Amino acid sequence: MSIVFERLTVIGLGLIGSSIARGAKARNLAGEILGIDASSEVRQEALKLGVVDQAYASADQRPPLMGEAKELVIAAVPVMQMESVFASLGESLGQRTVLTDVGSTKSSVIEAARKVWGEVPSCFVPGHPIAGSEQSGVAAGDAELFAGKWLLITPLANTDAEAIRCVLEFWQGLGAVTESMEIHHHDQVLGATSHLPHVLAYALVDALITVEDSHEVFKYAAGGFRDFTRIAESDPQMWCDIVLANSDVVLDQIDNFSNHLNNLKEYINKKDEKELLRIFHRAQRARRGYTRMQNKS
Amino acid sequence: MSIVFERLTVIGLGLIGSSIARGAKARNLAGEILGIDASSEVRQEALKLGVVDQAYASADQRPPLMGEAKELVIAAVPVMQMESVFASLGESLGQRTVLTDVGSTKSSVIEAARKVWGEVPSCFVPGHPIAGSEQSGVAAGDAELFAGKWLLITPLANTDAEAIRCVLEFWQGLGAVTESMEIHHHDQVLGATSHLPHVLAYALVDALITVEDSHEVFKYAAGGFRDFTRIAESDPQMWCDIVLANSDVVLDQIDNFSNHLNNLKEYINKKDEKELLRIFHRAQRARRGYTRMQNKS
Repeated sequence: MSIVFERLTVIGLGLIGSSIARGAKARNLAGEILGIDASSEVRQEALKLGVVDQAYASADQRPPLMGEAKELVIAAVPVMQMESVFASLGESLGQRTVLTDVGSTKSSVIEAARKVWGEVPSCFVPGHPIAGSEQSGVAAGDAELFAGKWLLITPLANTDAEAIRCVLEFWQGLGAVTESMEIHHHDQVLGATSHLPHVLAYALVDALITVEDSHEVFKYAAGGFRDFTRIAESDPQMWCDIVLANSDVVLDQIDNFSNHLNNLKEYINKKDEKELLRIFHRAQRARRGYTRMQNKS
Repeated sequence: MSIVFERLTVIGLGLIGSSIARGAKARNLAGEILGIDASSEVRQEALKLGVVDQAYASADQRPPLMGEAKELVIAAVPVMQMESVFASLGESLGQRTVLTDVGSTKSSVIEAARKVWGEVPSCFVPGHPIAGSEQSGVAAGDAELFAGKWLLITPLANTDAEAIRCVLEFWQGLGAVTESMEIHHHDQVLGATSHLPHVLAYALVDALITVEDSHEVFKYAAGGFRDFTRIAESDPQMWCDIVLANSDVVLDQIDNFSNHLNNLKEYINKKDEKELLRIFHRAQRARRGYTRMQNKS
């Protein structure tokens, strides 16, 4: 790959930030890679692991760029911290700086930018890589995390076309498949496919802790339970931020799910085998369709 | 391995029955292997694949055993069909026949035996291999399906000790780790760890089919969704039987889960970050404990 930006600044060296920096280094997408993280421990680890070339505690501490150098700044922090990250960037966005983020909720991140800058800067391309892991932290980063995964952007009317082009080129360089989406539509779709399942996984594990003999519940758990609850190991702060930042959608999705669960409950209670079978078959068909779609891509 | 039974009769050549027959053949646990299945298509496929040596449409059609030959009969059908399978066995249980089953709900299977024979025969050792797959059918069988997996038995007071010994020896021969459990305790624990997650997975997929843009919900689904809903591809008839056979426990577990989900909902609604974080952290810790336990075993 050829260099897309002279400088890449990754703010937040968690799983995602570390994976971006590693991927950019492995694929030679940036001239130099700066890491910003408030934790000195994380900065030291990132430097030791060679994830970044330089590390700073705050974005405004990074050295000024020379002349016409192009910089990509990526905010890779939990969504509730975006506003303070944007505030720390302040006026340091250079003439040729492009800004993007990796937040799972786009309305809230755009609102944070609006609060800091009044108007959302035209160099800001809101982005969201649909990739992750129940692992977290700088050491868990993986240069291949985004290969074959979706990268969605939700540009605004005033977003600069050249900034969009560069951000897409960068993510495609990391192996991602890019697509553009309307902001609220993004939050709606991700609320259903990602935020809701995480809430359910946390709720299930929490429910099972409280049953009698919960030790045995975990002891005799099989593959279904294992897969079902894997995402309950995800970073609590990150997911707390997401469900609060997208709370209206998440609450609607919980209600929709609860209605369907209550229907099943009623059919079980009435021993209505016919209705249960109809629903189980319909869900099986839909899930199989999803498997086929995955295998094709 | 040495032969444990002169004859193995597997009733129901689905995923589990086929896996038992393949495993017994691969590890030489039985002199000959008979398969019983009502479907002539399944019988032909089982013979063609070499899963069984002989195949019959009904258990009472199998040839009588010579003299003192030891036979193991395994009922591997959905739990609601156990009663008719037991009825088809009728008086054909020989002096040295041992009977077991693979049902996921033990109270209902024992009740079925009681209905057919008046008293549960002392040669019947209720069993449950905690192993499976979202695949189904004779061709999906796997000789290694039970390796390293739990096999629980729930014997009664009158169950013959020698029958128990032989059943455990057979399953250990298939690679399973065996343990004995009280009947209702089994149904309680499995209701929480297995039956509830299946109901939730079916309910989630069913809920997501109905949302607007459900195509996109599936299109942009990531690993979490994929793992979370895998079990919604499981055999609908089998799982319909299970939730109806263990309905009291399943309904209690749904209520317990719903209470925990409603708590989360309330905290999201009140934007109570502190409580959300507390619950997410607690669930993460419990799930990590489970991962550690799995890695140790």
